Amino acid sequence: MTSKTQETHRIADLSRNQLNDAIHLKGWVRTRRGSKGFSFIQLNDGSNLSGLQIVADEKLENYEDISKLNTGAALEVWGVLVESQGRGQDWELQASQVLIRGTAPGEEYPLQKKGHTLEFLRDIAHLRPRTNTLGAVFRIRNTLSQAIHNFFQERGFLYVHTPIITANDAEGAGEMFHVTSLDLEQLPKTKKGSVDYSQDFFGTDVSLTVSGQLGAEVFALAFTNVYTFGPTFRAENSNTARHLAEFWMIEPEMAFMDLRGMLTLTEEFLRTLLRDCLEKHEEDLAFLQKMYDSELISGLEHICKTPFETLTYTEAVEILKR
Amino acid sequence: MTSKTQETHRIADLSRNQLNDAIHLKGWVRTRRGSKGFSFIQLNDGSNLSGLQIVADEKLENYEDISKLNTGAALEVWGVLVESQGRGQDWELQASQVLIRGTAPGEEYPLQKKGHTLEFLRDIAHLRPRTNTLGAVFRIRNTLSQAIHNFFQERGFLYVHTPIITANDAEGAGEMFHVTSLDLEQLPKTKKGSVDYSQDFFGTDVSLTVSGQLGAEVFALAFTNVYTFGPTFRAENSNTARHLAEFWMIEPEMAFMDLRGMLTLTEEFLRTLLRDCLEKHEEDLAFLQKMYDSELISGLEHICKTPFETLTYTEAVEILKR
Repeated sequence: MTSKTQETHRIADLSRNQLNDAIHLKGWVRTRRGSKGFSFIQLNDGSNLSGLQIVADEKLENYEDISKLNTGAALEVWGVLVESQGRGQDWELQASQVLIRGTAPGEEYPLQKKGHTLEFLRDIAHLRPRTNTLGAVFRIRNTLSQAIHNFFQERGFLYVHTPIITANDAEGAGEMFHVTSLDLEQLPKTKKGSVDYSQDFFGTDVSLTVSGQLGAEVFALAFTNVYTFGPTFRAENSNTARHLAEFWMIEPEMAFMDLRGMLTLTEEFLRTLLRDCLEKHEEDLAFLQKMYDSELISGLEHICKTPFETLTYTEAVEILKR
Repeated sequence: MTSKTQETHRIADLSRNQLNDAIHLKGWVRTRRGSKGFSFIQLNDGSNLSGLQIVADEKLENYEDISKLNTGAALEVWGVLVESQGRGQDWELQASQVLIRGTAPGEEYPLQKKGHTLEFLRDIAHLRPRTNTLGAVFRIRNTLSQAIHNFFQERGFLYVHTPIITANDAEGAGEMFHVTSLDLEQLPKTKKGSVDYSQDFFGTDVSLTVSGQLGAEVFALAFTNVYTFGPTFRAENSNTARHLAEFWMIEPEMAFMDLRGMLTLTEEFLRTLLRDCLEKHEEDLAFLQKMYDSELISGLEHICKTPFETLTYTEAVEILKR
């Protein structure tokens, strides 16, 4: 069948302009329900939250298999994009062929249509990216990551990868993770009885970086404006939502810069990123707002619209005293 | 002086269109030489290799200080961009003000005009980004990094940050670095005498990842096309130019993909990145070619122009047998 060589479409990229076009999709079944003479399959390829409704007619030669499809099955579908008569979507795919790439085991499949707690999802880490919540979060994270790069690149900042394994303690205070290639069950010792790091990979005691600042400063004094965007580590044993052992951090460093310029850049940075999110993730943000935070979108819009207030330390103390 | 609030220009962005415009630069002195009534200062801000020639007239009020400037001094300069009468540059800056932000200690400054070995530069890691070689390398690395993101983002791939600290050994073979928050001088032991990892940060023995593949595969089965671009670690004690303990790796993972599609993508990927480099880094590549590899540019152009040959394993063996 020649249509198989056709380029695959992303569901998020489909538009009204493609009505009546031949469309080729690959993705996973979110739900399937039978109706008289049809199956309605909600197909998701991860490009957006809602996916696309596939209408499979009982005249399709493998309709018996199609009618048994469960949540989680993998499909390749060819068909024509048509206006939808049903509620909840503007268009749908009238399938001319449904190729079943993989089935799913029905009720044994851990991700059923019902909502699951985030705690439960931790136990099925191999499947949770298929949920609405993690889908929305990671699509937004992707947009933010690229927006971070675009923001700095457009302003002539150089992206630098500062060392992760380091013999420095950039901030002096944070607890650091040790990194070693020594066998911990049989640590070599010096004559004085302490660990013999001369036998370790780097010949000295090294750790995971708590900040790329030192490296970035060195680069800023050669390239003027630089930024890091990479993983950072803290061995602080405080298990709160605000403390992570491993996280990705952005560190801009600018030569010849003053406080006013830094404040302006920071404000532009936050606003640019949030605008990008609001523009590209209407559906994802609406979902997260409904499920987790009823003021999410208005809060983000407020930050975009309102100029930041700048205070001196003294002024802040005055306000607190009132 | 009102001109101080003026936006700073990047030397790499200056063009013929700005001749006779007021220009504001910040950067570091590469060389300075005196002539009758003038100083010629080669200023570099890291945005390109060659920097810009600044012409400072002896009539400038701080000319005595300007005439003592050494390699490495930090300057802020205002002036007008004019056609250059001298060789080696098309335009130069006729300075109206030269503000000395920092001086350099003359002969004691480790980076003199002469060439230095890469080995020597390792000992002055805080200054080596100011050299031509590291400047060219890190400008190209920045371009490649952004080109990697653009390539995948334009094709709808999701950027995922897979875990760095892991209890998995993705490839089974590579030597891994241990990560621990335990005090190596006083390791807690179990009753049986082995290390008591239950007291460690994660309650188990963890390492630095040798690959994000496992995490990326999980995401590909929800988002179809994903990629990682992050640091990876190997504790292999082979000190060659081809083995690094810490390096940044790109791992695309695609659902519903076949070998032919992967080959096509890989070829497009390499070609897109190299074209971007050749376009944006003519000067940097010419320098690296002159210093390190006389066939650098022709080699890169060859890869861009020549379709890749695809062979089966059997065909490759046949060729080797000839």
